[in-house]
Order: sequence, then structure tokens, then C-alpha cells
Amino acid sequence: MNAPPVLARVVRGGRIESSHRGDVAVVDEDGTLLAWAGSPHGGIYLRSAAKPFQAMPLLAAGGERAFRLGPDEIALMCASHGGEPRHVKVARRILSRGEFSAADLACGAHPPMHEPSALALVRSGKRPTALHNNCSGKHAGLLLACRLLGFDPHGYENPSHPIALEVLGQVAAACGVPASDIGIAVDGCSLPVFFLPLSGLASGYARLLARRLPGETPSARAVRRRIGRAMWESPGMVAGRGRFTTAFLEAGPRLWIGKEGAEGVYAIGVRPRGATGKAVGIAFKMEDGSARARDAVALDLLARLKLFPPGARRVLDAYRSPVIRNVRGLDVGRIEAQVALERR
Amino acid sequence: MNAPPVLARVVRGGRIESSHRGDVAVVDEDGTLLAWAGSPHGGIYLRSAAKPFQAMPLLAAGGERAFRLGPDEIALMCASHGGEPRHVKVARRILSRGEFSAADLACGAHPPMHEPSALALVRSGKRPTALHNNCSGKHAGLLLACRLLGFDPHGYENPSHPIALEVLGQVAAACGVPASDIGIAVDGCSLPVFFLPLSGLASGYARLLARRLPGETPSARAVRRRIGRAMWESPGMVAGRGRFTTAFLEAGPRLWIGKEGAEGVYAIGVRPRGATGKAVGIAFKMEDGSARARDAVALDLLARLKLFPPGARRVLDAYRSPVIRNVRGLDVGRIEAQVALERR
Repeated sequence: MNAPPVLARVVRGGRIESSHRGDVAVVDEDGTLLAWAGSPHGGIYLRSAAKPFQAMPLLAAGGERAFRLGPDEIALMCASHGGEPRHVKVARRILSRGEFSAADLACGAHPPMHEPSALALVRSGKRPTALHNNCSGKHAGLLLACRLLGFDPHGYENPSHPIALEVLGQVAAACGVPASDIGIAVDGCSLPVFFLPLSGLASGYARLLARRLPGETPSARAVRRRIGRAMWESPGMVAGRGRFTTAFLEAGPRLWIGKEGAEGVYAIGVRPRGATGKAVGIAFKMEDGSARARDAVALDLLARLKLFPPGARRVLDAYRSPVIRNVRGLDVGRIEAQVALERR
Repeated sequence: MNAPPVLARVVRGGRIESSHRGDVAVVDEDGTLLAWAGSPHGGIYLRSAAKPFQAMPLLAAGGERAFRLGPDEIALMCASHGGEPRHVKVARRILSRGEFSAADLACGAHPPMHEPSALALVRSGKRPTALHNNCSGKHAGLLLACRLLGFDPHGYENPSHPIALEVLGQVAAACGVPASDIGIAVDGCSLPVFFLPLSGLASGYARLLARRLPGETPSARAVRRRIGRAMWESPGMVAGRGRFTTAFLEAGPRLWIGKEGAEGVYAIGVRPRGATGKAVGIAFKMEDGSARARDAVALDLLARLKLFPPGARRVLDAYRSPVIRNVRGLDVGRIEAQVALERR
């Protein structure tokens, strides 16, 4: 097995201190490989990059109307949110629409990822709850789906629960991988996590933003369009303050979507350009599982693929080659992404 | 440039999710390379693995006696401590011996690395100070050295300050690298950080524990022995609660020393065995700069080198192949170190 190529370097005092390797897959909505680095078809766990697909069973069953869901609620279902007060509020609202409470969430509690919110919680003497878990929106959405589909919500986090099979079917269809070829393990939030080719994840994100897909029903099309629209309409729900994914969605409304996953996963969908263009999907996974070079790699890829308009470049400039500051705030280094893409 | 080999894998549900690569150098006290993985002579920043050498100018000038320093104080000068109350107390005591205060520290403030101490600080409504900085002991020691050597302590963190030149000389002598060949940049704590071959770091740790070194003065020998002894006598000062380095020192008193550095650096010195054996030094650097596989890699290396006695194995068992638990505490994976060492 060859090592994946270096996608980014961490430079201190003009010398390379550390390097981050990874694999990249760029495909169009038909799943055709357009460009790559390393092994574009290697297996990866999608982690939270699967969240837009995990929101699909609820919407496919008519959940938007049944539970009066707006963009905030749908975006939070696709989110790895910061546990800010606004996120907690929307998570609680989603649960209430199905007469659920935080006690029904199987994700477990962790402190808010958004540090000021975590500190505020400690200062107030309160403990984090499952609502603060970055996955609470996704879990709340699955509970609503159980309600709507008539499934007993108990044990909804288990891979044999009927809602898990619905989700697996959506992941398989979106990514173009047979369900029987998708590996299953346990995610950080206790839900099933999906193992499939990196190029499949890229396809899934291209297809989220395609104009139309062969054989697609109008309702399936409406579901994926609703998801993209919610992420654009409520970008602050998808991640939060100070987070790349929120800034990225804000910088390209109706242009692209992006979503991170744990262990250095990132997936991007770019809408078709022109009258006949196809949607593009980009997915990459840092070999070491770290997130620190992820944003810079995402933007370097977009620039190399000529999918990065000047206006968005300016807005996202701070993420392109982040400065490393030491404890006193001195500029001591930089993260430099440089992806050598191979092309067909 | 070849990629460094994989030193550890992160496994979830029986599949490899992420991998950590790195370089390894194993040398004896003469600097002879005994074993390696990847590039043993590649340049690395020593980061906090340099701390035992940074404590040397003070001890070489007679600081132990002049400032009545005990093992706690000397160990804290070699530490990346957790900012626990005991660490803060000793840092303050070191400063007071030279009539310094926290305001003289140039390291800057960060929250304690020891999480319960960080939370307690937030709950009490207090802000972290420079005393909580994991490097406060090192900085306090350098201030005392300035006092003893008659240097104006102002600007002691700059690479042109006379104390910095003393430290550079000690690093050069310990690691067997000419000072003019050592690269300098700015560390996390604003002191100079040293760039030199990985095998040089390994040599430095072997030499710390050698019986005698050619051409060495009795006082130089006393300095390095004092450092090793302080780390064994006060292992809790060198890192802290829940930290590998403290457990490692406790598991092998008078047998080995170990010290981590940022960006995935670790260095170990092992004392000579038998009447004629030589001390061994082990140094490695994770390519991606992450720390999560570091402890497991250190123990895997010791086992492969047959330097890991059964008693210490039992004590350190939890660090050998750490379980990855998710938010609810479920066992979802494992870090598995497996270093393919090459040998002379």
C-alpha cells in the first residue's frame, strides 16, 4: 500500500514541522472520477459527513409538513453544531414537535464544542446535556422519523432498528453503493457509522446538488433540494460561530454545500454551472484523522478545480493558510495546503 | 522523499479508520544508531523534549545549592506540567527564590492542561495565569539562571539573550550537534525552539543516563544525574495526573526517563544494563504532529527493543493499546501501535 500524498504542511520558522497526508476524490453527479489524489476509491467511515443523508428518511416521509419544520430545524439535523444556546433551543423544539424530550436522545452528553458556550455552562454551574451534543439535531430528526413511520423509537440507535435500515437505504442510494457493501460500526454518537469508498461520498454530495438524477421521483428530488436549501438558509445551524463549515456555506449560498466528519473527513457538493453542466462532488479524508489542515485543504482543492469564485475567496481568506499563534499570540507558523491533483 | 512508515493505526469496528506515521531513532550513548524506522537523521523541532537540557545552565552554575532547589523544583523545570495546584505552587516557589514573580514570566497564560484544574479555575471565576502555563517551571528556572549568572533577566526569551546562548550550548553538547547546525524558531511558550536530527535527540537522552561520558567534568556529570534523579523522585511534577510521562517515570524509577514534546515528539533514555552496558536513547516524531498514538508507540518500541520489564508492563498496560470510547463511553475502537524497526 502506497502512502497517501501530503495534502498540507505545518511550517514553523520556515521549516516543515509536521505534514498531513490524505486521499481525495472528485467526481461528477454521474460518479465519473474527474480528479484525485492518493486512493480515491479507498474505504472510509463517513462519520458526520453522512448527516444530510441521515436526514432524508424524515423528509421523504413528509416530516417537513407533518412537524412544521423550517430551515433551522432541517439544517440542525444535518449539523455538527457547536452546542450554542441557539442550537440547544432548536434541538429542543424539534424534539417537542414529536412529543419527545432530551431523555429520549441516545447520543449522550458532551460539553458544547463552541468554547464560549462551554465556559458559560461551567460558570453557571450546569452540566452539559444530550442537547449540547453536536449530533442532537440528527438524533432528534430520527426520533421524529420513527414517530411518522410508526416505528417504536426505543433503540433507534441500533443498526437493526427499522429507522437504521431506512437511513442505510438512503446512504446507499445517495452514494451509489449497494447497502450490502457498506460496512457498519458505531459512531461517536452511538448511531451506526458507514464505511464505503471515498468516491462514493463525493458522488453523494454531487448528487445532492444535481439538477435531476436518472430515475428519480419528484419527491426524492424535493427532499435533497430541501436539504441543500436549509443548509444555505440556516448556515449557522450546520456548525456555528467560528466554524469553517458555516463560513463556507455563507460564502457560497446556492453555489455549494460542505460538511465535515470526524477523523479528518470533508465533503463538498458544487452545483452545476451553465445550462448543461454537471454537479461536482469532492471528498477527502486526512489519513491521520486530524482536522487542523482540513479547511485549508478544502479551499486549495476548490481553487485547483477552478470552482472558487473571487468573492468567496475574499470571505474565506482566513481559512486558506491559517497562521499558527503561540500562547502569547505570536505568529510562529502556518498551515500550507498544497494538493497535487491527478486528472483523467 | 519517502513517506515515514505507519507507527500506529486507529481501528474502529475492525477496520482501519486512521493511521499515524513517524520516524524513529534508537542510539546508544556513543550516538551509534542501533535501530530505526523511517528517517532517523531527519530534522525535527525538539519542542518540550528539550526541557531537561534547558534546565542545565542553572544547575551547572550551582543553582541547586544557591536557591535550595529540591526534586520538585528541578522536576518542574523539566516539565510540561498540568497546571494543577501543586504545579502552580512549586512554580511560584521557584520564582520567589530569585525574588521574581509571575509577572516576570514570558510564557504567557493558558488554561491548565489538567482538565479538572481548568474547570475548577473557571468555576472559581479566576483567569489562568502564566503560572498555569505548562512551561512555567522551565521559564522560572531560566530566570533563576539569569540571576545567578548575572544576566539582566529582561528579554530572557529572545534567542540572542545570553541565557539562550547558554541553553543552546547545553543542547548542542548533549545532542552531539554543533550549535551552528541547530535551527532556531519560536516555541509555543515564546522561547527559542531547536531544530536538529532526530538521532541527536535520542543521543541526548542516552547521554543523560550514561555512566560516564568521554571528557566529561565531574560537575557536568553531577548536573545530568541530578536531572534524572529529580524526574524519578518527583514524577508528578514532570507531567501530572492522568498523564503518560508521569506514569512512565513511576513505572521505571532509576530505569528510564521520558519526556514528550509538542507535535508528536517523544524521547526516552534507558540506563545502562549490566556492568559494561551502554545507555540507550529512543526518540520519535509523529509526522502529523498528533499525540494520541504517542504513548502506545513508546511502549511498543520498548517492548520490541526488549527494554520493557514485566513489572512495568503491568503498570503501563492501559497505555499500550488505548480503547477509544464514544460520548456514551462505549468501546468503539482502539489505537494499535506496531512499529517495524530496522536494525543494524
